[in-house]
Amino acid sequence: MNELTLNQFLIVKDIFSFGIACMGAATLFFWLQLSRFSKSYKTAILVTGLVTAIATYHYFRIFNSWDEAFTVKNFKLYTSGIPFDFAYRYIDWILTVPLLVVELILVMKLSPKDTLKKSIKLASLAALMIIFGYIGERSEDQYTRDLWWYIGMLPFLVIVYELFKGLNKSLKLQPLAARPLINTARWLIVITWSFYPIVYHIDLLQISRSSFVVALQIGYTMADILAKAVFGFFIYLIAVKKSGIDA
Amino acid sequence: MNELTLNQFLIVKDIFSFGIACMGAATLFFWLQLSRFSKSYKTAILVTGLVTAIATYHYFRIFNSWDEAFTVKNFKLYTSGIPFDFAYRYIDWILTVPLLVVELILVMKLSPKDTLKKSIKLASLAALMIIFGYIGERSEDQYTRDLWWYIGMLPFLVIVYELFKGLNKSLKLQPLAARPLINTARWLIVITWSFYPIVYHIDLLQISRSSFVVALQIGYTMADILAKAVFGFFIYLIAVKKSGIDA
Repeated sequence: MNELTLNQFLIVKDIFSFGIACMGAATLFFWLQLSRFSKSYKTAILVTGLVTAIATYHYFRIFNSWDEAFTVKNFKLYTSGIPFDFAYRYIDWILTVPLLVVELILVMKLSPKDTLKKSIKLASLAALMIIFGYIGERSEDQYTRDLWWYIGMLPFLVIVYELFKGLNKSLKLQPLAARPLINTARWLIVITWSFYPIVYHIDLLQISRSSFVVALQIGYTMADILAKAVFGFFIYLIAVKKSGIDA
Repeated sequence: MNELTLNQFLIVKDIFSFGIACMGAATLFFWLQLSRFSKSYKTAILVTGLVTAIATYHYFRIFNSWDEAFTVKNFKLYTSGIPFDFAYRYIDWILTVPLLVVELILVMKLSPKDTLKKSIKLASLAALMIIFGYIGERSEDQYTRDLWWYIGMLPFLVIVYELFKGLNKSLKLQPLAARPLINTARWLIVITWSFYPIVYHIDLLQISRSSFVVALQIGYTMADILAKAVFGFFIYLIAVKKSGIDA
């Protein structure tokens, strides 16, 4: 990464700081709204804020690790000899990605039995997906990387199937006013989550190594903000609609 | 920036610390008042505090970046070789400036449909304005800088038009007691926001480079405090008047 320019280094640092600000602001927004919800939706909103809170913590770690990986001397950039630890993203996802599907299930307010069953099923699949992706990302060999990508896609496809086929019956039991929002929320999961397996392969585009690093980090951060803060805002809107309170 | 005196360095540092204190205090004031408001105005007050909270975070970043950009040895100031990252301001504005117009719309308590429509329209224009300004500010060439200034002025003028023409009908539906406050709030937006495009051109006044740096940072900080904390206080007063509670 030593061909990175000072400007590229700063842009990525700005983006990570933007991640901290977005995730932190989203958390405060969700939790300060908690008191307005009846007990039926409190847990959903609480978990929504929990996801962005965990992400805020990890964006601090990512920001600091990026800062430590470089030294600036006389307005020139040098690598410091300490590696940038991308694994914080995976540590974040192992916790937050299963919680994201739980958010959606909680706000749908299914029967206690269905809530538990679907939460365990979808959260386990989500955790598996991240673990497989991590194994692939950690490997140095292109063949192993590709192999784990395919293995990680399996739980992802089951999740997509479950979100559309498995939740359809439950969706029909939702109040009419909330249905389009829930539908948008599940599409938001599919579209934003699809971004990660694409970004995993960004090196195939054969752009120069330093632009690759910048593009990768911008891409991940934007996908994270959409998948957690913006998705969380949809969960909030669904809870508002179903509770009949003002946004 | 190496002609900056130690005193000038300290003045700017003081100003940034003043920014942290003002924004932090404003946030605490707004959020500690939250429980006094009925559900109709809670989100408006919450977002008002969110804007100053995001600004508090960024003033910490700006303060630390300024401090890192210089080294003090034997009571003399030297540049450290690490650039001062002005981009934190833009990262802040991309989030806070759209939220500022949302605050005003929320406290007016329009119909849910109008709230959504006007919020999306004005917030998008505000975000565009900041992005155009950032592109101009990042460019080194005077012609490009000027060009993006003109492009950035277009969404700004549309926002001003919308605030005065577009909100006039809604203003007439507001309680009589709240109207002068709402009118002042929108004027506060126009006046404080006008400061930024002027400051963008402060170098045209051909003052010495180090005084320019000091003037620029004082100007930005004061404009930020007026546009966020003082403007937020007006939003609070409007909510107080409309709720019929004591300030």
